[in-house]
Amino acid sequence: MQQIAVLGSTGSIGTQALDVIAANTDKYKITVLAAYQSEQLLAEQIEYFKPKFAVLIDKQAADRMAARYHGPTKILTGEEGLLEAATFQQTDTVLTSLVGFAGLKPTIAAIKAGKNIALANKETLVAAGEFVMALAKEHNVSIYPVDSEHCAVFQCLQGESKRQIARIILTASGGPFRGRTIDELENVTVEDCLRHPNWSMGRKITIDSATLANKGLEVIEAKWLFGVDYEQIDVCVHPQSIIHSMVEFIDGSVMAQLGLPDMRLPIQYALSYPERLPTSFPRLDFKALSALTFDVPDTVNFPALKLAYDAGKKGGTMPCVFNAANEVAVYAFLNNEIRFLDIPKVIANTMESHTIVHNIDLDQIYIADTWARRCALTAVADFRKR
Amino acid sequence: MQQIAVLGSTGSIGTQALDVIAANTDKYKITVLAAYQSEQLLAEQIEYFKPKFAVLIDKQAADRMAARYHGPTKILTGEEGLLEAATFQQTDTVLTSLVGFAGLKPTIAAIKAGKNIALANKETLVAAGEFVMALAKEHNVSIYPVDSEHCAVFQCLQGESKRQIARIILTASGGPFRGRTIDELENVTVEDCLRHPNWSMGRKITIDSATLANKGLEVIEAKWLFGVDYEQIDVCVHPQSIIHSMVEFIDGSVMAQLGLPDMRLPIQYALSYPERLPTSFPRLDFKALSALTFDVPDTVNFPALKLAYDAGKKGGTMPCVFNAANEVAVYAFLNNEIRFLDIPKVIANTMESHTIVHNIDLDQIYIADTWARRCALTAVADFRKR
Repeated sequence: MQQIAVLGSTGSIGTQALDVIAANTDKYKITVLAAYQSEQLLAEQIEYFKPKFAVLIDKQAADRMAARYHGPTKILTGEEGLLEAATFQQTDTVLTSLVGFAGLKPTIAAIKAGKNIALANKETLVAAGEFVMALAKEHNVSIYPVDSEHCAVFQCLQGESKRQIARIILTASGGPFRGRTIDELENVTVEDCLRHPNWSMGRKITIDSATLANKGLEVIEAKWLFGVDYEQIDVCVHPQSIIHSMVEFIDGSVMAQLGLPDMRLPIQYALSYPERLPTSFPRLDFKALSALTFDVPDTVNFPALKLAYDAGKKGGTMPCVFNAANEVAVYAFLNNEIRFLDIPKVIANTMESHTIVHNIDLDQIYIADTWARRCALTAVADFRKR
Repeated sequence: MQQIAVLGSTGSIGTQALDVIAANTDKYKITVLAAYQSEQLLAEQIEYFKPKFAVLIDKQAADRMAARYHGPTKILTGEEGLLEAATFQQTDTVLTSLVGFAGLKPTIAAIKAGKNIALANKETLVAAGEFVMALAKEHNVSIYPVDSEHCAVFQCLQGESKRQIARIILTASGGPFRGRTIDELENVTVEDCLRHPNWSMGRKITIDSATLANKGLEVIEAKWLFGVDYEQIDVCVHPQSIIHSMVEFIDGSVMAQLGLPDMRLPIQYALSYPERLPTSFPRLDFKALSALTFDVPDTVNFPALKLAYDAGKKGGTMPCVFNAANEVAVYAFLNNEIRFLDIPKVIANTMESHTIVHNIDLDQIYIADTWARRCALTAVADFRKR
């Protein structure tokens, strides 16, 4: 019986992870559920899964729940509560599906406590990839990717030797605005963005998909997960989202993983690896498939992807700054403070103002993150005035 | 240094295998070259590779070569010569690319002599799959598939457990006559058949591709190579021949191997496995790819595929009979004795007349093969009269 902590249990990945776990109660048991503030949904999850600990990071939400809940699950709150829950001794695997940079600290705590990580929080590796991978090695824990692209690459690498990788080909749907011109992108609204053609996801990642920043975050994540150079990571637009990613080897052979766009599959694989468990998910029906097509990403009208490559290649604190500026810009866009096309501009301005620190430790990552958020907020304020 | 015997060195697969070996002389050395009767090309190959043995199965061709060749390579002839060469002590791997049922005997001899097999002769497993796989297990030798489809499946299975296979999906180009009606197939000529859209191959396999009998042979080959049931093998028409085959696992995940249609890749993989060696073969360029499409095979107008499934499911001597009748019919078609649409009719007539023997040994396979050839020749004679 594998004991699992789900950090971010009320979000899109978290709820789908609980679906997978509920379908395999002979294999998995929930020890910890953690959410930011969705107290109603968390209460239902506690009722169903009866974890040892539940966390509401927001203190007011936690207080309200503590006042009305009197069951056996211990309710914790705040960052201290989250870290206590993330390191709970009985847990084998921590699924980290918190959104954004906030996922870094509990992930690090879980690694230090010897937990395997099912990683759905790509910002952790973007901001602190070198540090986190070294820490995982030191503590002899495995990091299993939950992102569908990285799960696909991970599957393509089974039974293969890393030194025989020629390149990793991350596929990208191209987002809801693929093919649009700059003029057409001028007045894109939040609602336009949230209608993603293939995947149902949380709000932050849906905006990131529309700007291609998400693919940029994935490029940096892939660099650290698979230990390749940026020159070995290509992005290929594949609007149907059937091929989830590919690996080309030195002999020219290309391995690919295909499936319907359903996050439950990579979530389950990250938990069950190296086993595969039977599922009742709908199957890929080749007879019913429309044509699979491929294209190059449009980095002119969607510059965030190129900015991510630049940040990754510059290294040091720059990927952390890319991530922080992107988070600030996305939330400003979601709050209707800036326009769609301002998002990459906020990132670019922040990156330009940054003095990179190399050979970084965790403190420097936090300092860079804080600096970048402040800098990005200034950029947001400038764009608001226009 | 891996020492390799190439049986069928002057054919399409054989010459491409020699290209691969010539490009990797630090890894591979030729011990044996064997051909049916192409003495001129074999003489050039002997000059270049300087094997210990060379075989011309045809005695007259061998006599002519012996009269004019006076180098260090020992020239052998006939079935005895072929078997002596196939079992030569210094050989590590025997690449069997002889055409048709004739490949069975030397493959069996090589297995008994403890050689690993790079199998390009699918008829071996079609006629005697159960026997050959048991023999390989007994002698602790590996059989590596050279067919592009089976090589693809083999790659998809790396790092996976066979009991987690849901189904194998063999892709098929559909051949040069995909989409044609029975009326349009009436007067198809040998020349029409030999213009295959994607692959440059030998004459026999090119006709087999046009009738879909080749895909039927591959279904039976896959059954034995990968130890699955026929219900777990699907055929999917994929006209672009970029996805070479796929495996769906019990969780719904599908692994695929992609590449340009180039037999040197599966040939090299069968020799280099589990390593991959760098190549200068042209790479798959996703930007230049046309759309990848999928369809179901047309088993009404191309009944040979369904006949192969029937033969496989009936088991015993029936797959051997399917193969023998197909060989006879194909050569009759190549000699303009029967028409294209008669090929599956000859197979069907022969299968209908056959009384299956189960729990077969090798003698029974030879008896069934001889019986089926005689029966098929009678059917051919009937069709000639029409």
